[in-house]
Amino acid sequence: MSVTNLRVLLARRPNGAPVAEDFTVERGSMPAPSLGEVLVQHRYLSLDPYMRGRMSDAKSYAKPVAIGAVMEGACVGHVVESRDSRFAPGDAVMGGFGWQQYSSVPAGRLIKINEDEAPLSASLGVLGMPGLTAWVGLEDIGQPKPGETVVVSAASGAVGQVVGQIAKRRGAKVIGIAGGPEKCAFVTKTLGFDACLDHRGPDLGAALDEAAPDGVDVYWENVGGAVQAAVFPRLRDFGRMVMCGMISQYNEAPGADVSAAPPGPNLGAVVRKRLRIQGFIVSDTGWPRYGKFRAEMLDHMKSGLVWREDVVDGLNAAPEAFIGLLKGANFGKLVVRIA
Amino acid sequence: MSVTNLRVLLARRPNGAPVAEDFTVERGSMPAPSLGEVLVQHRYLSLDPYMRGRMSDAKSYAKPVAIGAVMEGACVGHVVESRDSRFAPGDAVMGGFGWQQYSSVPAGRLIKINEDEAPLSASLGVLGMPGLTAWVGLEDIGQPKPGETVVVSAASGAVGQVVGQIAKRRGAKVIGIAGGPEKCAFVTKTLGFDACLDHRGPDLGAALDEAAPDGVDVYWENVGGAVQAAVFPRLRDFGRMVMCGMISQYNEAPGADVSAAPPGPNLGAVVRKRLRIQGFIVSDTGWPRYGKFRAEMLDHMKSGLVWREDVVDGLNAAPEAFIGLLKGANFGKLVVRIA
Repeated sequence: MSVTNLRVLLARRPNGAPVAEDFTVERGSMPAPSLGEVLVQHRYLSLDPYMRGRMSDAKSYAKPVAIGAVMEGACVGHVVESRDSRFAPGDAVMGGFGWQQYSSVPAGRLIKINEDEAPLSASLGVLGMPGLTAWVGLEDIGQPKPGETVVVSAASGAVGQVVGQIAKRRGAKVIGIAGGPEKCAFVTKTLGFDACLDHRGPDLGAALDEAAPDGVDVYWENVGGAVQAAVFPRLRDFGRMVMCGMISQYNEAPGADVSAAPPGPNLGAVVRKRLRIQGFIVSDTGWPRYGKFRAEMLDHMKSGLVWREDVVDGLNAAPEAFIGLLKGANFGKLVVRIA
Repeated sequence: MSVTNLRVLLARRPNGAPVAEDFTVERGSMPAPSLGEVLVQHRYLSLDPYMRGRMSDAKSYAKPVAIGAVMEGACVGHVVESRDSRFAPGDAVMGGFGWQQYSSVPAGRLIKINEDEAPLSASLGVLGMPGLTAWVGLEDIGQPKPGETVVVSAASGAVGQVVGQIAKRRGAKVIGIAGGPEKCAFVTKTLGFDACLDHRGPDLGAALDEAAPDGVDVYWENVGGAVQAAVFPRLRDFGRMVMCGMISQYNEAPGADVSAAPPGPNLGAVVRKRLRIQGFIVSDTGWPRYGKFRAEMLDHMKSGLVWREDVVDGLNAAPEAFIGLLKGANFGKLVVRIA
């Protein structure tokens, strides 16, 4: 067993889109568990868009990662050594272990997972934070009803693929939006959405009019920008806009004045159409409902709900993979397999 | 008793701000009640911003008034003749009787009111549609909690004055926004808001920072435009924006392209701060709750809730009064006393 701990640190705050030099990959010493802690060997690291926010010191809902600190992130792994009676070596666990090979973590911050139910990495995606995000946003805000039309941006991504498949199972017509024909084919043929529109096409508005001639009841917002501008005027009366993310602007320069952000839609339609536009962060209310969510998702998986991972090998590759994620280069839930 | 019925018709659709020539004031014949109908002599007509939408044939939540038809509007009055067993001459009633002196209305569309509880005209304001609007928007969307900060635009208006007084009674700190020192003095001294900011002042944003140094939990939107632009960035985490109206843009030219509307705020903050921006129309869900609302409001009125009316005399004056309403020229709930 290696006595060093490969890890990725935040070297400096990115200016706009992150670059490789914003990260440092180095070997640290092995963490030793204190009483009540568990030493975990990580198998997979999740890479998610929210991490861009943690790299910045702009005001946000969570503290930034300090310069020189290990990048934050969720991992799944196995217990190597336990100094808490609830865990034993070999147990599969998930938690916020960071971009590194090993961590010592207070036992109360771990969730034990059953590897017989699904592959380990699924607990970072369809059964993890992204899946829970999809489920919470639909439960609390989107609330699709049978016969309604749901539009999902970043439809082949970690959250989008789950949103659409849950909405289908609740009787909605589901239209994905994704980048390029390969992703669109996956969204319709493999995920089973009713349609998928390529946002790189010449006229997304016209494509929406054709796919959803009566308008849109629920819009799941992952991206913002031009896609939002195309969907917003097509919301129907009593439409809901689930504000999960706006990845298109995550790379704006830190400290930019609010007034410098690109403008959004005129909100007159919110009154006229009685729209609801609501943002949420899964960590606010999601985890106490994890058990209910996981049971429902395991049922869906038995009846054909699928998911796609984009697996990258080795922590050395994590910075480039994350940089690509913010540009839509991944195809499916992005995870790093840790050697 | 006059045998003619003075009334105001829509002469043509306004181009931008309505002008006197968009209306025709004329004398029509007295309406005769059919079986099941009631002839009502109107005492007061309510003038409200939503009427601007009815003058336009742009797509909206309600049908436009036809050219040459009587302008729509709520009135209170007294029954003159009844051909329905539920009503007798002399009964005080409210309903959507239009801009005219008399109407014959199906009995099922009338609400009988108790003149002993409050002056008749109050049922067009604090006890009528504007009051119900305030109550429904706070119940369903704003939901102010004790200690929270509520900002109310058009604070001296028909809806705003009720919003703020209810929110105060629910334990919130209430800041009004109004046009000019006279209205602001009324909002703080008579209505009892904690503060009132003049949107004509040099820097509304700075005034908000001083009055609400920790930010805004609930913003009641009546106006849009520059006031919205000042309040939006000051919303706190989990803030709610009650989208009741955006009077600043009601006079936009009909048929204007959606993309020609002035842009709104970038919605990135909706995710980051978990905001809820929701529109509503009181007629969707309000009237079945009218009894509960009226009882609560009568209690508030006994314990000091006040209201201000701006009374104009005679239907001949209604067009000019309505034109002024859209410019903020009224001071309090605008009603027309009908001779």
